[in-house]
Amino acid sequence: MNILYDERLDGPLPQVNKAELLKDLQRALPDLDVLWREDELKPYECDGLSAYRTTPMLVALPRRLEQVQTLLKLCHQKNVPVVARGAGTGLSGGALPLEQGLLLVMARFNNILHIDPAARTARVQPGVRNLAISQAAAPFGLYYAPDPSSQIACSIGGNVAENAGGVHCLKYGLTVHNLLKIEVLTIEGERLTLGSDALDSAGFDLLALFTGSEGLLGIITEVTVKLLPKPQVAKVLLASFDSVEKAGRAVAEIIAAGIIPGGLEMMDNLAIRAAEDFIHAGYPVDAEAILLCELDGVEADVHDDCQRVREVMTEAGATEVRQARDEAERVRFWAGRKNAFPAIGRLSPDYYCMDGTIPRRELPGVLQGIARLSEEYGLRVANVFHAGDGNMHPLILFDANQPGELHRAEALGGKILELCVQVGGSITGEHGVGREKINQMCAQFNNDELSLFHAVKAAFDPQGLLNPGKNIPTLHRCAEFGAMHIHAGQLPFPELERF
Amino acid sequence: MNILYDERLDGPLPQVNKAELLKDLQRALPDLDVLWREDELKPYECDGLSAYRTTPMLVALPRRLEQVQTLLKLCHQKNVPVVARGAGTGLSGGALPLEQGLLLVMARFNNILHIDPAARTARVQPGVRNLAISQAAAPFGLYYAPDPSSQIACSIGGNVAENAGGVHCLKYGLTVHNLLKIEVLTIEGERLTLGSDALDSAGFDLLALFTGSEGLLGIITEVTVKLLPKPQVAKVLLASFDSVEKAGRAVAEIIAAGIIPGGLEMMDNLAIRAAEDFIHAGYPVDAEAILLCELDGVEADVHDDCQRVREVMTEAGATEVRQARDEAERVRFWAGRKNAFPAIGRLSPDYYCMDGTIPRRELPGVLQGIARLSEEYGLRVANVFHAGDGNMHPLILFDANQPGELHRAEALGGKILELCVQVGGSITGEHGVGREKINQMCAQFNNDELSLFHAVKAAFDPQGLLNPGKNIPTLHRCAEFGAMHIHAGQLPFPELERF
Repeated sequence: MNILYDERLDGPLPQVNKAELLKDLQRALPDLDVLWREDELKPYECDGLSAYRTTPMLVALPRRLEQVQTLLKLCHQKNVPVVARGAGTGLSGGALPLEQGLLLVMARFNNILHIDPAARTARVQPGVRNLAISQAAAPFGLYYAPDPSSQIACSIGGNVAENAGGVHCLKYGLTVHNLLKIEVLTIEGERLTLGSDALDSAGFDLLALFTGSEGLLGIITEVTVKLLPKPQVAKVLLASFDSVEKAGRAVAEIIAAGIIPGGLEMMDNLAIRAAEDFIHAGYPVDAEAILLCELDGVEADVHDDCQRVREVMTEAGATEVRQARDEAERVRFWAGRKNAFPAIGRLSPDYYCMDGTIPRRELPGVLQGIARLSEEYGLRVANVFHAGDGNMHPLILFDANQPGELHRAEALGGKILELCVQVGGSITGEHGVGREKINQMCAQFNNDELSLFHAVKAAFDPQGLLNPGKNIPTLHRCAEFGAMHIHAGQLPFPELERF
Repeated sequence: MNILYDERLDGPLPQVNKAELLKDLQRALPDLDVLWREDELKPYECDGLSAYRTTPMLVALPRRLEQVQTLLKLCHQKNVPVVARGAGTGLSGGALPLEQGLLLVMARFNNILHIDPAARTARVQPGVRNLAISQAAAPFGLYYAPDPSSQIACSIGGNVAENAGGVHCLKYGLTVHNLLKIEVLTIEGERLTLGSDALDSAGFDLLALFTGSEGLLGIITEVTVKLLPKPQVAKVLLASFDSVEKAGRAVAEIIAAGIIPGGLEMMDNLAIRAAEDFIHAGYPVDAEAILLCELDGVEADVHDDCQRVREVMTEAGATEVRQARDEAERVRFWAGRKNAFPAIGRLSPDYYCMDGTIPRRELPGVLQGIARLSEEYGLRVANVFHAGDGNMHPLILFDANQPGELHRAEALGGKILELCVQVGGSITGEHGVGREKINQMCAQFNNDELSLFHAVKAAFDPQGLLNPGKNIPTLHRCAEFGAMHIHAGQLPFPELERF
């Protein structure tokens, strides 16, 4: 799908000789598994954003830290670009490989090293799956809070690299809020510890800087996360609305009432019907929008909050508010939401999932704006998202076999993200920038800000070998892409009024 | 007190001609208030760490952003070091001025620009006092959570620069966890926006990097903070113990029980007696240690938590657990804690307040270690601290008029911080590194890590003009200081066993 992506705008990459690199690797690390045959490389040509595909030059599958260290030193010395990959579930093409580079797969580092129930921490290797941490912590009544939809498969190293979120991040924060310490290797093979076992650490906050840096600053080799006690009770309310604007207002009013739900999700009519057809969750198919609001904590507290949320929703115009009667119904309500993406996949040959974040107060206006853009571009858009934190996931439906639709879908996606920037939001909530949103970074940041990103990148990786062409665009790209930096509140797009 | 501090170890600073700089400033900014007479400069020669004093060359007191911008451009062009200062309440000498530099006082930027009750945010100028934000938010039932002891006086710009904490940061986080967005000026006078009004932002997390960077990366000109709804109820328990180890264990067990108190503070016998003599808070003067545990939230929840905390404390060996009977007693219990520093000031001509953070499980051992060091150095140490988050504030009592005591106090302080590093902790919890702990940074970080800090610093300020000699030591300093980097768990200090 990368019609709008022109990789020449990222500047020249070093030329690497495949046979020579393979020989060097085999000599330096005779016991390292390296894939080099075309058929072996195939499974690694994309991550979760399957529209973008590139065959990597070589794939390395190390098992030991020393292997990674030697490999990085070699690549640094020979000027070979390196792309790190965890489970490959990312949705912005952050782990998209390079034809002229090595793909470093960290999936085999999958040991849980230590669970400390008293300190409520888990020290794990980067290839450990997100859900596996919670499973290992469960016997102590603890869990790891961030829960991306891919949590069965995605790895914690990738979660850190992308600063992953999930349906509970309104209350429990993104990955960065749930980390204590990471161990990383620089491109020169130096081992660094960022953060500490204590709650604060001295010097610059490189742990936060590294989190969400999408593989541009170094390779994550160990992660210490915070664990939380499992809430005693969780209850879910399902509210129906006859307009998305009313549902949007209800979201703002729940938060303004001082309630912080464990999860607060919105779906519009297209998404509701798709999910209901697929999962039979019991959703009201005539509603223009529904809200799912989970309240968790101790029994009495949850009971009170349910009452208050019910009142706020009703005042905001909910036509019906239902509380899941039992655990089975609660799980069914969530199953509809969690399977909304594949459900929509059944409506259309292709879909394209966006990930913009906006201030909550802008929800109704941005939803209107998306509807207008949808009409203008002649493509349906379903809205399913983390309403509580203003993290939208518009899903653009298209058919890649229809001439021009692919191109239109990508252009529409770009416009939606630029709309998010325009109202003071961000082009990414939890999926990262990767390759996908590299052009929109030019709308989000001005040249001074981008230059600063490049200077910070150069502090870690002066040769630019780590994941080039992702996350931070070159100034050349932004000049060619032609998008001016959008100041929030300005109106660079004449077709979009201020709502 | 800076006997152990030798500023020659920070490398040469540019030589600045005072008369020339004054003339340049007056020409470029005729309406800028600049102080230059010896008697006018006097009040600015130190911050809250009054043991370190230097007379600034000039003090600038701008009122408008453009003035700051022009001033920075001029200093950048003329190679003049700049130290920023908010309210000057910092405890690590971060705002200590330079004889060869300009002190930039941001105190006059003291307007609250916007309170948004629906989004629960406040946009303020950097000179606004911490408490003034909560006061402005109070009519909406909201407040700003981080509450350093100096909250009546300290400014939000300084809070961001130092990543300030407070008695409630166990539950509500440090400053970095309560920020959405900041506006800054680089040393070149460029305006940057870091963070966004949305919950996540794209690119590297420069907002977190900037928070706690102690004036080394740029000048904060605007701050958007998150506001929280005021808890319905707050109750305080006061528990007495016959040993500090038992109190330390109780802390670990409260947290392990899955309870997150609003505040969880410990005081040892010396601190208890000092506070009781001064404030008459009703503390048990015979106890070896007390814990103050505040539980906040909705009524029913707080009631349950009080019961559970009481049980846990009793099991951990509390000899008595009292709940404040009414709001007046609750306030009195806290008044003792909040005035513990001045109370100890009455016991001794001088005291030196440390700020180390350790993993909670190390509390009993580190308290023993401090007791042994106290004996070895022949100086009394009182312990008053944020026990819940392992943030210790040992207070070293000494008399600067007794030959050698000043020197011994500083040396003892350094040893206590190195002990914190040794058990996996940090040399700062919430006060920052500043000038005070610059030597201990050599114990906390290895040369690779320090080099990375320098590279990041250079990305923002290649000439090193912003607050030189603070926060990040030169490699030369670390080599001369002679302290090797301490890996947590190693035993570089033969006089300290592993507890």
